[in-house]
This record gives sequence, C-alpha cells and structure tokens, in this order.
Amino acid sequence: MEISKPTLMVDLKKVERNINRMADKFREKNIAFRPHFKTHQSNFIGEYFKKAGVDKCTVSSLGMAEYFAANGWQDICIAFPANVLEINRMNDLSKRVQLQILVDSVEKVQLLAAGISANTNLFIEIDTGYFRSGILYDAVAEIEKIMHTIEAFPQFKFVGFLSHTGNTYTQQSPSEISTLFNESRQKLIDLKKRFLPRFPNLILSMGDTPAASIVNDYSGIDEMRPGNFVFYDSMQYFLGSCTLNEIAVVVYCPVVAKYPERNQLVIYGGGVHLSKEKLTRNGKAIYGLVSKPNSTGFGELIPGSFVESLSQEHGIIYMPEAEMKQIQLGDLLAVYPVHSCMTVDLNKQMLSLEGLQIPKYRTY
Amino acid sequence: MEISKPTLMVDLKKVERNINRMADKFREKNIAFRPHFKTHQSNFIGEYFKKAGVDKCTVSSLGMAEYFAANGWQDICIAFPANVLEINRMNDLSKRVQLQILVDSVEKVQLLAAGISANTNLFIEIDTGYFRSGILYDAVAEIEKIMHTIEAFPQFKFVGFLSHTGNTYTQQSPSEISTLFNESRQKLIDLKKRFLPRFPNLILSMGDTPAASIVNDYSGIDEMRPGNFVFYDSMQYFLGSCTLNEIAVVVYCPVVAKYPERNQLVIYGGGVHLSKEKLTRNGKAIYGLVSKPNSTGFGELIPGSFVESLSQEHGIIYMPEAEMKQIQLGDLLAVYPVHSCMTVDLNKQMLSLEGLQIPKYRTY
Repeated sequence: MEISKPTLMVDLKKVERNINRMADKFREKNIAFRPHFKTHQSNFIGEYFKKAGVDKCTVSSLGMAEYFAANGWQDICIAFPANVLEINRMNDLSKRVQLQILVDSVEKVQLLAAGISANTNLFIEIDTGYFRSGILYDAVAEIEKIMHTIEAFPQFKFVGFLSHTGNTYTQQSPSEISTLFNESRQKLIDLKKRFLPRFPNLILSMGDTPAASIVNDYSGIDEMRPGNFVFYDSMQYFLGSCTLNEIAVVVYCPVVAKYPERNQLVIYGGGVHLSKEKLTRNGKAIYGLVSKPNSTGFGELIPGSFVESLSQEHGIIYMPEAEMKQIQLGDLLAVYPVHSCMTVDLNKQMLSLEGLQIPKYRTY
Repeated sequence: MEISKPTLMVDLKKVERNINRMADKFREKNIAFRPHFKTHQSNFIGEYFKKAGVDKCTVSSLGMAEYFAANGWQDICIAFPANVLEINRMNDLSKRVQLQILVDSVEKVQLLAAGISANTNLFIEIDTGYFRSGILYDAVAEIEKIMHTIEAFPQFKFVGFLSHTGNTYTQQSPSEISTLFNESRQKLIDLKKRFLPRFPNLILSMGDTPAASIVNDYSGIDEMRPGNFVFYDSMQYFLGSCTLNEIAVVVYCPVVAKYPERNQLVIYGGGVHLSKEKLTRNGKAIYGLVSKPNSTGFGELIPGSFVESLSQEHGIIYMPEAEMKQIQLGDLLAVYPVHSCMTVDLNKQMLSLEGLQIPKYRTY
C-alpha cells in the first residue's frame, strides 16, 4: 500500500467497536437506534451497522437516502427540512421504503401534500434552543395546527417529535452537555405528555453524538440518532465524548517542507482535504491533532504538535524542535480531523489500514 | 433548466471579461501571465484563457498538472512545495511538458534529483513574510547553496525566484495591499540584482489576486500568477479587488424553512457546498452574501442579508423582515461564496447560466 498524497484512512476495528458500543448501549436501554449516516456516507460501513442489528438510519439529504435505499435500507429518516423542490423524487422514494421526513410549518405540510401521494411518515421538527431549524418547543398552538394539517392528508402519518440538540457542541464540559441535553429532553417530554392522549404512539427522537456518548439517562426518549460516533474526531475528544484511541479516521499527509527555525512544517493536506473547521484551545486555532503512523495504525500523538493553519492544499503544523528532528521530508503524518463529518465528505474515497478502498456516496 | 438542490452556477460572460481584463493588463505591461488554475480546475474554462492568448498556467497539485497536460497545456508550474512521494509521476509528466517545480532547500533538490531524470525547471520559492512555505528572502547564503546544488544536476535548470504574497489577503484596504506587495516586490528585486550577473535569465514570479487586481506598478517583476480573479468572491469584494458585478460564481440554494420572528431562514446549502471559509465584518461572521436570481443572472444583493452560519447541509441566512416577506419556501437564493477557490473545489460540477454542465478536474 503506497500512499503519496493526502488520503483519508479508516481503522475498521475502531469503527466496529464504536458501532457495537453505541448499538449495545441503546439496546440495553430499550431505545430505538437510528444512526445518522451522513458521517460515513458509505454502504460498506452501513454493513457494520447491519451486523450490529441496526435496521434503520438517518441521512441529511434525499440523494443520500436514495443511495442507502438502493443498498437495501428500508427505513430511512431524512433529518433535514423537507425540500419541496425535490418533491417528485421524494414521492418516488417513499413508494419504495419507509420514509420519515421533517416538517415544521402548516405551509410546508400543504406544499408536500400537493406532490406526495405515497404513504409517508412525518416528524414535526422541534427547536429546543439550538435555533437552527424546527418550530420552537413552546409554540404549542402552532404545533397543534401542524398536527391537524398532517391529519387532513391520508397519505401522511404523524409519528412524533424530532429534535437535534446541536448546541451540545458548544458546551465546555461533559456535565454541561448532560445538563443541556436534559433540559431539551424535558421540553420534548412535556410536549409528548400534552399530545399523547390524542396520539398514543407518538415518539420522541433526539440526536447528537456528545449526548449519546456522555449521557446515561434517556428516559422518556424513544429514539436516538447520533452519527459522528462512528469515527469521532478531535472536537469530540476535547468535548469528552471519546478517547483519542476511539478516533477511527485520520488523513495521512506527506511532509513537503520543514522550517525548524519557526517550529513549523508544511504538509500536503489543506482545506480541500481536511475542511476549514477549527477548534480553539487556549486562544489558539487548531485544525487537527498530529501523529506519526506506524505499522499497526495511526500511532501516538506527537507532543505539542497541531495543525495551526490551512490554505487550499497547504497545512501548517506547529511542532516543537525535538519532535521535528524525528521528521523527514517525504514522511507521512496523520492528522486527526476537527470534524470528521466534514472531512469525510470532502474525500471521495476512504482507505482502510489493510489497504481496502472503501466506496462512498458521491454527492456530485 | 430545473435546479432543485445546491448548485454551483457560473456566469461565463463575467468569466470571459475577468480573464480578458487581466490578460490585457499584463500584456500591456509586458509581464508574463501564468494564471493559477486551482480556482476553476476546468479545462472548459482553460479554453477561455487560450482564446485570450494565454499559453502557460499554474496549478497546486501534480494531479491537476496531469489533468491540464492531458488537455494540451504544455507549460505548467506546480506552485506547491514539490512532494517527493510523487517523484515518479512528476518525472513522467516532465518528459511530456515544460514543468516548473518549487524547491526551497538543498535537501529537497537532492531528493528530487534522485528520481527525476527529465529536464525540469526549478524555481526557488522565496518567503517574503507570509510564512507559509519558501526560504526566507534574507537567507542569502542558503539561497546560494540551493542554486549551486541545482547547477550540479544537468537535468535541472534554475529559472528564478517565485513568491506568493498571500498576506495581502489579511490587509484592510487597497492601499495596504499595494504597500505590502511593493515591499515584497522590492525584496525579490534585491535578490534578483544580487544573482543576475551569474544567472542573466533569472525571472521573478509573483502571485495573488488582490495585488494583481489593485496594484499598477509591477516593475522588476517578470511573471504574475493570480488565480482567483477568474471568478472573484465576497472576500475579494470586501478587499477591494473587484466589484460585486465581477463575481462570476454563486451557489443557488433552495429555501427550506423561514423563521421571520428571528429574521432567519434556512437554505439547503451548508459547509459541504459552500466551505466553512468566513469573513468578519463589524464583528459578525459572514459565510456569504445573498441575492435573488432572476431570468438574466444572479440578481441584486438582498439588502442587509448574509449567511450567518453553516452546518453540514444547513445554511442560516439573516434577513430583515421586509425582505423576507418576498421569499417563499422553495425559492432559490444565490449565495456569493466567501472564497470561490474552496467552494468550486467542493462542487464537482458547475452549471452555466445557459444550462451547460461545465466539467472539472476531480481530485478523487
């Protein structure tokens, strides 16, 4: 296996462990597990989920739903505000699989009803304070109107409330993550209580890897949809969601220049390979942690070293003098990405440590 | 032409005008023009450059060099620190075209000499203060050693000094850009004067779109390598490199949710379509400017509106109440990207306003 340019590497043993751990956790808690597949976007990785007993998934676009449907997935949630411009393809797909889509307004339900005739499950997306998408949890009268509108169309079934607590990502500690998740959970439980008499089967679906990794009490929640945990990344490591050893993807990058006088070296590996997503630690921007791969895997982190800036193809790594002495032009370094979802999306192929090319969905 | 998902749109008339303006400018000044093709990465766009009389180009990776070589480009500079792991492919390509590659250390020249037998032009990359790659302009003794080493290998020819003044991007005004460019230019001219007696044909090659757009005096410089100007973007607009009307690429994105109570709407168009590159204006992050396309093109900017955050597929647009009243679910909005090079790289295909699919180099 010869690697000569930036290459997304996957440790499949870690992937399998990450999947089994999460599947076991929710099985034990008797919570439905509908993992988000936007992180890996790969049917090959999907097979590991099937082996772990998972039979439903979440995606972030209709194209991705079509890809996984073509690969045998029969129960798919598109966890993104339904795009009325894709209504015909949505209807076609809904004839073939059990599709769950998201609405958060009366108008959206009406627009969808004009083009979707196949039986389709509708989640009402609830915003518990992340302020990205969804109707605010306390707009109860409006939520009820949406439910009425859904009931008016025989092809639609209201299945429950879905929320993504994405604001866990900006918390500073595991206990802050737990607190925030519990507050959101309580808001959803209150909604559920209010509407359960009329919709005795309505479910609550929540997401996000920090909460799925850190929290232990999910009572009242029926379904969890984390995605990132399949690979984890530097951001999750700093949030406390994972150990370094659980991070299952890195990008191998050739060293192309060394500047010991300023403790910097340049790798072939830039924003187009890693994404411009960054962390801030002690006031410094971090675009990835750095290790030296060895024969068995990604290797140990190089102390004091991190990617400190990125342009299109250049990555600048800060590295203390003693450590830089061990590095030669032409060496490969492993960069632990800040946000694996973005990094994996950028790289149209993944390579396993065993040298296997792992196919992925190609957006374009 | 039906657009239902995030789509990179190109106004080819603007592209042609941008190319002709820059080609004319450097022709009049008698400066060689070697445009950087990493921005468009498209042989189709390359043909517009040929029509404008351009016969040499710059790229940022060996793969991109191979792509343009396969499409008839005979004189190509890889403006990136030469990657010794790709030495065999570099040698193969150098047999077929006039290849210019970059070195900035004795060690790099020696490593390359071990694998490259074809006649190859070497630029010494000079760092005039950007601190990304290249040897510092004042390390004169070391620069001389590199030249000696190049001379020792008959397959190599030292052609001159190349620099990328990427720090123009962080300046606050056109006059600051001019000042910085002139300082860098003077550093290179001093180097040239010192070595001209021994290398009477050595040239100075500089890059960057802000300087190429704003500066008028390039005396002493032999070659310019701007790339971004072919499309420009919001960042260049705020730097003063271009007018809004010269920006030739946008991403059309469907509106999928509206939240008038918080002056926000959600588009289908996130970091995987636009890149996470951002600007800061008046303390606010801006991930793109926003217009409503019309039948003739990208349309006028929507006053007070901008992309204020991005996740993987969601874009959040801030929009004043009055303007939001004009926008419906399912409308397409045009986002003027912050950094067109990154955005174009993410989108594996471009669509012209006339509905033509414009092919591109695919990195993976």
